[in-house]
Amino acid sequence: MSQTVIGIIAGVLTSASMVPQFIKILRKKDVGTLSPLMLLVLISGVALWTYYGFLKDELPIILSNGFSVLLNSGLLICYFIFRK
Amino acid sequence: MSQTVIGIIAGVLTSASMVPQFIKILRKKDVGTLSPLMLLVLISGVALWTYYGFLKDELPIILSNGFSVLLNSGLLICYFIFRK
Repeated sequence: MSQTVIGIIAGVLTSASMVPQFIKILRKKDVGTLSPLMLLVLISGVALWTYYGFLKDELPIILSNGFSVLLNSGLLICYFIFRK
Repeated sequence: MSQTVIGIIAGVLTSASMVPQFIKILRKKDVGTLSPLMLLVLISGVALWTYYGFLKDELPIILSNGFSVLLNSGLLICYFIFRK
């Protein structure tokens, strides 16, 4: 199995594992468990990983971390919309 | 800045963002927000990313995903210990 395929499968798994929490928060509008500071730290990290992927020209790293930037930015926006 | 340094900073950020939740769960022994299925999917993904890192011989990928395997495996163990 090629390295790229392994990276893409890894990326699909790590990305998929984030989706249920995102859907749950959208449905229940409950952002009590979210920490905006940790979301910012995470978004900075995955944004840097995306940049790292471009430097290394590795598609699996670019795609999975790019997805994570979008999803966690969505969580941060949800936090500011739904917080009491 | 070298690619490896960028990767290590990215890894430190994404790893750091997971630690507060882990400490909170250890302290409060409240695993209500955890989904064992999603933890298993995530652990499989980061384990595959660690393997990908070895294939590519990229230290930042090995270290950060290896840490994530340990931390999320710890969360899964906490889930089975503390669940009601």
